Amino acid sequence: MRKLNIAIVGLGNIGSYLFNYLKINKKILTEKNNCLPIVKYVSAKNKKRKRNIKIKKKQWLKNYLDATKIKDVDLIIELIGGAEGPAKKLVFNALKNKKHVVTANKALIAKYGDQLSKIAEKNKVNLEFEASVCGGVPIIRSLKEGLIANKISKIYGIFNGTSNYILSSMDKENKNFKDVLSNAKKLGYAEANPSADLNGDDVASKLKILTSLCFNSFLNDKIYVEGIKEIDKSDIDNANKLGYKIKLLGFAELLNNKIYQRVHPTLIKKDSYVASIDGVLNAVIIDGKPVGQSIIQGEGAGPAATTSALVSDISSILRGNVKFPFSLSSKERKKLSFADIEDRTFSAYLRIEVIDKPGVLSNITNIFSKNKVSIKRLVQDPNKNKKISSIIIVTHNSKNRSLSKVVKEVSKKNFVKTKPKLIRIDEY
Amino acid sequence: MRKLNIAIVGLGNIGSYLFNYLKINKKILTEKNNCLPIVKYVSAKNKKRKRNIKIKKKQWLKNYLDATKIKDVDLIIELIGGAEGPAKKLVFNALKNKKHVVTANKALIAKYGDQLSKIAEKNKVNLEFEASVCGGVPIIRSLKEGLIANKISKIYGIFNGTSNYILSSMDKENKNFKDVLSNAKKLGYAEANPSADLNGDDVASKLKILTSLCFNSFLNDKIYVEGIKEIDKSDIDNANKLGYKIKLLGFAELLNNKIYQRVHPTLIKKDSYVASIDGVLNAVIIDGKPVGQSIIQGEGAGPAATTSALVSDISSILRGNVKFPFSLSSKERKKLSFADIEDRTFSAYLRIEVIDKPGVLSNITNIFSKNKVSIKRLVQDPNKNKKISSIIIVTHNSKNRSLSKVVKEVSKKNFVKTKPKLIRIDEY
Repeated sequence: MRKLNIAIVGLGNIGSYLFNYLKINKKILTEKNNCLPIVKYVSAKNKKRKRNIKIKKKQWLKNYLDATKIKDVDLIIELIGGAEGPAKKLVFNALKNKKHVVTANKALIAKYGDQLSKIAEKNKVNLEFEASVCGGVPIIRSLKEGLIANKISKIYGIFNGTSNYILSSMDKENKNFKDVLSNAKKLGYAEANPSADLNGDDVASKLKILTSLCFNSFLNDKIYVEGIKEIDKSDIDNANKLGYKIKLLGFAELLNNKIYQRVHPTLIKKDSYVASIDGVLNAVIIDGKPVGQSIIQGEGAGPAATTSALVSDISSILRGNVKFPFSLSSKERKKLSFADIEDRTFSAYLRIEVIDKPGVLSNITNIFSKNKVSIKRLVQDPNKNKKISSIIIVTHNSKNRSLSKVVKEVSKKNFVKTKPKLIRIDEY
Repeated sequence: MRKLNIAIVGLGNIGSYLFNYLKINKKILTEKNNCLPIVKYVSAKNKKRKRNIKIKKKQWLKNYLDATKIKDVDLIIELIGGAEGPAKKLVFNALKNKKHVVTANKALIAKYGDQLSKIAEKNKVNLEFEASVCGGVPIIRSLKEGLIANKISKIYGIFNGTSNYILSSMDKENKNFKDVLSNAKKLGYAEANPSADLNGDDVASKLKILTSLCFNSFLNDKIYVEGIKEIDKSDIDNANKLGYKIKLLGFAELLNNKIYQRVHPTLIKKDSYVASIDGVLNAVIIDGKPVGQSIIQGEGAGPAATTSALVSDISSILRGNVKFPFSLSSKERKKLSFADIEDRTFSAYLRIEVIDKPGVLSNITNIFSKNKVSIKRLVQDPNKNKKISSIIIVTHNSKNRSLSKVVKEVSKKNFVKTKPKLIRIDEY
């Protein structure tokens, strides 16, 4: 029987869950993959942390980097996290020393994936990162295998459970951002420092990886990223009245031979599939040819779902299935041109808080008209107590550049109380 | 460069589409899989049929079975169809002669998959059948690879586009079964002879295959199958009033160490995910541990979607990824016990058409109570013109056996006009 010696580096919630899983499921994994997985070594920053797993003394590595040097390690599972520091050192050294690598580290892959991939290809080892994108949703394997036949024109969806939980709770429980966030922390749906989840960075890393896989391109940092911190409860209510939900979506699309990568809150029709995804779920929608539209949905985070993804990568390596990390070899991957979001057109929702006095409306609509942004719908919602009005505007399709100018010019007016909130609309 | 010689046997809409696809996409497939696919031979029953593809004279096989004998064929793609006759002969002989096989033939795999799998394993060749279940939805590869870590407790969903199109059109367009069916035929959503789609057999074949993959069991013919032919427009209207949609669903589930396989029209809550799937789409929902619930949705039929699935199988073979056809080797697959649907409990909807006369209602409710089926809701809907009433009953959870008895006993009453319609309810 073939066997594969594994070192798990990083024993937090995910590492511990995986350790246990591999122990309990050794037999079935061996049968399915014709190769025995042996967790030979582990390493963790804090050896003494309480874990409900039994680690033998001889399993502990003295130094985490020993995993890259010891002869009886075939596969290193990196669960340290972060794009720099020990995680980076470990994965680079592992691949250089011809060890297979499985990682859940989206920041590392989004930043160094191209370099790492070249080393892996040169040394004919696997670099697998299913767990880095959307937890248990088998999106990477689907792109690389199940949907391999397809020329993909667009991929989009909900890639962050925390922000989706917050937006859907604000909607359903009629609460504001702060209250929902503090509740999410209590429930374990948001980390103590949730900034990467809320400012869109987490989605951006995942999207960059998906973009490369979908369009056979290298990783690219040209990406528009906007988070959900400035979504007000009133935006959610207004969206509802207009027939929309607000979701934090990531999009990568090929338009006129250019790729647009963007992450931003989006108004999406209430009866659309994406609008129906509530809570911490993730969902990915893929438009491809010949297959048409495919959807994959599932648990996006947590030790259990992440272990499901890690084990699919481990199994692929157990079967001896060496592949290019990004589907194509680095020689064949393309340098496609990535476009600026300012060049794309959107219809948009704008909320402008103004001091209620004569001439304000015509002043504002003039700015729109001067910038050739045509207005589809306008609602003025006076709040008499505060002598302030909310002006809600839905525009026709307009260049993002023009929309940006409108926001900038409107902001400068002395009757405007706060920076206007612009949210792009997607008509799917 | 490695290469793989392919013979396509069967050149209907799907075979022709695939032929063209492989010609146009030869380069990218070679790059992704590190192996060149060459369509060396083709065979078709009717050579002269009009096809928009260019076949060289030397590509035509004299006899379709030659594909299994000729030395320069590595992979045979079987697109003949049907569980018996030429398709069966071709695939058995191909595997015996150590040719890889890719097939879209659900009837063949559902019937002979176990035997075929043994031959493939013995001869170390691939037998792949992604295209046999749910067209372009990569469900088989997801079960065998992306979700390999999971112990699956239940798989269910919409596995037949034709019947789903008919049910959702009856609902949305307010038309009866016959009208929608004739329209579906005109639109190409139903075949000239759609009986396998309408009587549940198509779903049953797909479900048997999925059951084996999910539970590591052999194929099993213990399956309850009921189609949609007897769904009346009034059932759809009644379901709506009660907060449900009617869908033809396939279910395989593990309950108390027994597997239940069943295909039947089902009342499912309006706001559930499955209820929202309209038209010819397919959707598969998988409950697994550790991943939780996963959903995969996409185009279930047609040459384009089927080609997407066929090419994922072909690519796997190009990469030299020999695997067990049913995830586990035949030696490791289990003989699980399959249970009779009569032993499972359901809540159910019943429509009973009765002649409107005194005592009818108490007579009927007595039958329910005698069989220990307790009634949750009862609506009597008189149709004065015809002196006939519809009695709509929703039951509490009851043994299927008791529900069957109720139907049988009620049917015998002389005041009952037609066999009562029973539709099981799923509370997801």
